[in-house]
Amino acid sequence: MPAVGIIMGSDSDLPVMKEAAQILDEFGVEYDITVCSAHRLPEETAVYARGAAGQGMKVIIAGAGGAAHLPGVIAAYTVLPVIGIPVKTSTLSGVDSLYSIVQMPKGIPVATVAINGAANAALLAVEILAINDQELRDKLLDYRLRTAAEVRQKDQRLKEMGLKKYLQHKGEQ
Amino acid sequence: MPAVGIIMGSDSDLPVMKEAAQILDEFGVEYDITVCSAHRLPEETAVYARGAAGQGMKVIIAGAGGAAHLPGVIAAYTVLPVIGIPVKTSTLSGVDSLYSIVQMPKGIPVATVAINGAANAALLAVEILAINDQELRDKLLDYRLRTAAEVRQKDQRLKEMGLKKYLQHKGEQ
Amino acid sequence: MPAVGIIMGSDSDLPVMKEAAQILDEFGVEYDITVCSAHRLPEETAVYARGAAGQGMKVIIAGAGGAAHLPGVIAAYTVLPVIGIPVKTSTLSGVDSLYSIVQMPKGIPVATVAINGAANAALLAVEILAINDQELRDKLLDYRLRTAAEVRQKDQRLKEMGLKKYLQHKGEQ
Amino acid sequence: MPAVGIIMGSDSDLPVMKEAAQILDEFGVEYDITVCSAHRLPEETAVYARGAAGQGMKVIIAGAGGAAHLPGVIAAYTVLPVIGIPVKTSTLSGVDSLYSIVQMPKGIPVATVAINGAANAALLAVEILAINDQELRDKLLDYRLRTAAEVRQKDQRLKEMGLKKYLQHKGEQ
Amino acid sequence: MPAVGIIMGSDSDLPVMKEAAQILDEFGVEYDITVCSAHRLPEETAVYARGAAGQGMKVIIAGAGGAAHLPGVIAAYTVLPVIGIPVKTSTLSGVDSLYSIVQMPKGIPVATVAINGAANAALLAVEILAINDQELRDKLLDYRLRTAAEVRQKDQRLKEMGLKKYLQHKGEQ
Amino acid sequence: MPAVGIIMGSDSDLPVMKEAAQILDEFGVEYDITVCSAHRLPEETAVYARGAAGQGMKVIIAGAGGAAHLPGVIAAYTVLPVIGIPVKTSTLSGVDSLYSIVQMPKGIPVATVAINGAANAALLAVEILAINDQELRDKLLDYRLRTAAEVRQKDQRLKEMGLKKYLQHKGEQ
Amino acid sequence: MPAVGIIMGSDSDLPVMKEAAQILDEFGVEYDITVCSAHRLPEETAVYARGAAGQGMKVIIAGAGGAAHLPGVIAAYTVLPVIGIPVKTSTLSGVDSLYSIVQMPKGIPVATVAINGAANAALLAVEILAINDQELRDKLLDYRLRTAAEVRQKDQRLKEMGLKKYLQHKGEQ
Amino acid sequence: MPAVGIIMGSDSDLPVMKEAAQILDEFGVEYDITVCSAHRLPEETAVYARGAAGQGMKVIIAGAGGAAHLPGVIAAYTVLPVIGIPVKTSTLSGVDSLYSIVQMPKGIPVATVAINGAANAALLAVEILAINDQELRDKLLDYRLRTAAEVRQKDQRLKEMGLKKYLQHKGEQ
Repeated sequence: MPAVGIIMGSDSDLPVMKEAAQILDEFGVEYDITVCSAHRLPEETAVYARGAAGQGMKVIIAGAGGAAHLPGVIAAYTVLPVIGIPVKTSTLSGVDSLYSIVQMPKGIPVATVAINGAANAALLAVEILAINDQELRDKLLDYRLRTAAEVRQKDQRLKEMGLKKYLQHKGEQ
Repeated sequence: MPAVGIIMGSDSDLPVMKEAAQILDEFGVEYDITVCSAHRLPEETAVYARGAAGQGMKVIIAGAGGAAHLPGVIAAYTVLPVIGIPVKTSTLSGVDSLYSIVQMPKGIPVATVAINGAANAALLAVEILAINDQELRDKLLDYRLRTAAEVRQKDQRLKEMGLKKYLQHKGEQ
Repeated sequence: MPAVGIIMGSDSDLPVMKEAAQILDEFGVEYDITVCSAHRLPEETAVYARGAAGQGMKVIIAGAGGAAHLPGVIAAYTVLPVIGIPVKTSTLSGVDSLYSIVQMPKGIPVATVAINGAANAALLAVEILAINDQELRDKLLDYRLRTAAEVRQKDQRLKEMGLKKYLQHKGEQ
Repeated sequence: MPAVGIIMGSDSDLPVMKEAAQILDEFGVEYDITVCSAHRLPEETAVYARGAAGQGMKVIIAGAGGAAHLPGVIAAYTVLPVIGIPVKTSTLSGVDSLYSIVQMPKGIPVATVAINGAANAALLAVEILAINDQELRDKLLDYRLRTAAEVRQKDQRLKEMGLKKYLQHKGEQ
Repeated sequence: MPAVGIIMGSDSDLPVMKEAAQILDEFGVEYDITVCSAHRLPEETAVYARGAAGQGMKVIIAGAGGAAHLPGVIAAYTVLPVIGIPVKTSTLSGVDSLYSIVQMPKGIPVATVAINGAANAALLAVEILAINDQELRDKLLDYRLRTAAEVRQKDQRLKEMGLKKYLQHKGEQ
Repeated sequence: MPAVGIIMGSDSDLPVMKEAAQILDEFGVEYDITVCSAHRLPEETAVYARGAAGQGMKVIIAGAGGAAHLPGVIAAYTVLPVIGIPVKTSTLSGVDSLYSIVQMPKGIPVATVAINGAANAALLAVEILAINDQELRDKLLDYRLRTAAEVRQKDQRLKEMGLKKYLQHKGEQ
Repeated sequence: MPAVGIIMGSDSDLPVMKEAAQILDEFGVEYDITVCSAHRLPEETAVYARGAAGQGMKVIIAGAGGAAHLPGVIAAYTVLPVIGIPVKTSTLSGVDSLYSIVQMPKGIPVATVAINGAANAALLAVEILAINDQELRDKLLDYRLRTAAEVRQKDQRLKEMGLKKYLQHKGEQ
Repeated sequence: MPAVGIIMGSDSDLPVMKEAAQILDEFGVEYDITVCSAHRLPEETAVYARGAAGQGMKVIIAGAGGAAHLPGVIAAYTVLPVIGIPVKTSTLSGVDSLYSIVQMPKGIPVATVAINGAANAALLAVEILAINDQELRDKLLDYRLRTAAEVRQKDQRLKEMGLKKYLQHKGEQ
């Protein structure tokens, strides 16, 4: 029974959205992944959103680009927290997606992350689940320690190697 | 049996949307006017859109501000032409509304007019209805002649009065 | 006798505009396709627009980029519904085209679709024609069913294959 | 022991942020309200964020305008979900606040709501708390029913009164 | 026989456009002032532009807001230099007007000035006329000297009075 | 003795600015071409601008990107008409250049053309010179006829070939 | 002998720029205040900038709106650090000023602060002077302590009074 | 003991930030280069900033992209002048970075340079250090002379070679 639902308007959003799945895999959080368009399959979208809580879902992550109505439409049919990912577009770089997702009217919030910010959407979902799950919270603290350590290591390597060597080394990788 | 449905997400959009009603009154086109939020009343919105054609509607005019999903959600449930009016917002001046309405994905078009362009939305609806209604087309041609005459009169008055007097006269009105 | 006129300012817009033609082909709607610049051939543009209704045209689809005056200039000479396609530009990504087409003054509407949204422009034209053409309406409903089925199939395949295999499979195609 | 912390960079943000408090009052959710600048009181901000979980807080709502670093700085010191409210600014209308809050780097998410969207920030906090609180979820469903009913009532009144009377009536209130 | 034609799409542009007239008055340059909409009076606009050179006009100043096609449409019908003034709009502040006027395609230039920059449009017209009119060039040099002297005087007064007194003095005026 | 001065802030602007030179070559207008930075060579820039009229120049075309002060700085030192070309930038696509060039304060106009619009800058210069040069005006009219004919030919070819063949033919070229 | 030069393009910028003077007064830093337009008085601007270092100036604060060339032009004539203040404009809210000031080409930096950020410009100047002035650095630390204490006091008062009373109290002031 | 600290949020900013190091090398100014994220290593960032002055640093150059809080967070912990470099982002081209860095609240300035303007950040740092270092000021004047000479040489070569040859020659390099 997945705790998180990942949904997107088109399978062309998968290269962005897969990062959310990878983070959830990393944290051992089960998820369901669905392609369902708010515009081409409005009724299935409604069914999905209305049924999510009953199926045990606790958070929904929805990504969309352009007019990007999917997260808001999902949020209209459920009181589960909905996290919206504005997908970058070829014409307006995702500013259209961002405005369409973040500027929701009073009453129906969507928790918006950065353009193409699927990894952060998943981390936010984990943070939400971790409120009542000490093990998950420990994993989050561990994740933070690891990413902190990575930055620290890069800094150390840069200081040992010097700027030129470090850049060469990076280029070679 | 109204040929045009005017729908908006909130009654705070009425000061903008009423211009659409006024134009339709002027052209003798019957219309229904409805307040129905895509987010607070998603099911009623779906019912409205699915039922519109069956009730004899031929064109739907939908106005919304901010995330502004209403026109797109309506369009998802009907193959009637949907005209979208991006309503000006206090924070982003309606650029958010414009992007949310105009950037629809392939398959589900929304005919978008200018920010707060409710009068033009109605004129576009009349143009669409006039394709098969000679009387309406004559009224449109007449409307064009009248608005053309108005500009011509202003120009004449400006030339007769001169710039200073004309501006004084305008200020006094 | 074509029901739809497709017109663009330059043949460099053809790679975008051809999608409109493809949709009309798909729906069996006859169309005329014309290259005619509002700025380099203003008189021919006026002749085109004034004559459109008389030649049996019912809807005009006009695409342009940059200052993008063509749709508005066409609309000034006819009371047929004019659908405007803002073509993406190399410098401002089509925001210039969008503003120039959508922000028409009161009296002369242009039904604007997404940047590069030529397919939707054609679908909108079909929706307009379908108001009085049951066969065309049936084709539209059929088109909706087909595109809905496509999304449904992708979702099913994703669920059967799993995320990794699906992405590999997509990459291979 | 408050479940939600509301924090803002300046008391000039209170007219916006108080809407969050009002929603939480309405839902009977306890909260702490704090003025603490990420730039003028960076250490107190860090102390606040690091201590939040230990003090029993489950969600933090942070509002800021302009460079608007507060939500992101809070998020850097805690794994509690942080909800960011971009406050409208006099020069850039809150686009600066929005970009500064939503465009967080991978690893540290901020759940961003609309510009000045304090009410939705609180509703999102309630949705998060409601995952494990059936009573709160019932209140949310009730809230949705009430706001839905309000829209329905307005629509009914508009239909009974007609457009002109309704607008007069609204103006008189 | 006026050397400069001032034309605008609507008499609502007059409060902006009158500054162009005032500058031309100041320089003793004769001008014609016309209200003529590119969209409501397209044929008169064409007649105006085609006839301008024959009537002795040397420069045309055209102002418009929103879709703002007037300057470009005028330029399409004449090889006289056309100066475009983007008029500020209530929704998009004149960014729409600016893009619609300045982003002209290759072949048909419009000399664009600042949003609401009617005074500069007239000064540019005078500069153009002054190429072959030594008296006008002397007036321009004189104008530059006067506006330079004004800045110099303000600076001197500020230094004599000090900041506080100067601001009080300004407020009292 | 060149009638037109072409000046740019960096030789990296040459691929854009050369189009201005090509147009002037085509019209047989002599020009001087200069690389001179408003920021790195402010004094030479001043000398250039102050001396331009004395050396017989009649119009100056100035291109710059980013902060793009060159056209405005030139305009500060001369009453010759200055045409500004906003050069596209890698970060802000030339919106920065456009705003820096077009938003000149009252008193010092710059005639701004489209981003990267060097060809139109030259055509505008020719239009200005043509006011007192019948031969040049004839060449302009001829240029317009030629570019009009080109569009007309493309339209004809498209109609003869049909869309598919035309696109293949274009691709092959 | 003033250490800081404050310069602005027009005395209409004084209501913004006076905040810089007030901060410098508060820190006991002497300054010169000058109105001098880069476009109307280009030569005096050059004289000012070239002479600044010789007269003992150490930092220059330059404010301007719109095309806003003043800070960049000053920077072209001196190697003193130049701090630029983008002044808010009525049409583009100061985005034009910001881009014109911040997007300087390689070689000639301008240290840009927020739109209308005159107080911060002065604080930055003090920070620069404080590098070699322990007394000034102590004053800066003191200033930070005071502004921190102010935030702390507001927070305390809010917590003592509660939200409602605090807002009433603020409204009464 | 380095006078300048260069710090960035991620080693992916190095290709931009290295230009700052190269300029400082060229001027013989010692610097420290550090990778340290305001979000992943908030405490180390605070330690770095608080300790900078004590370690003899005089200026800090901080680069970041997206939400880009690093420069502002550094500035919150030190009264040394902080120079912020908005790094270009793949989605919003660095407008997000620019707004997040430049729009700092009153009290905590960040001296912002152009998007990706790392070279200018270093030149600004040198200008600041040169206030009390005649040798450094001489180097700056020398640098200006050299970059001026480079522009002059390019201009000369262009004039000798002519446009066509010059462009060929550039292409060959």
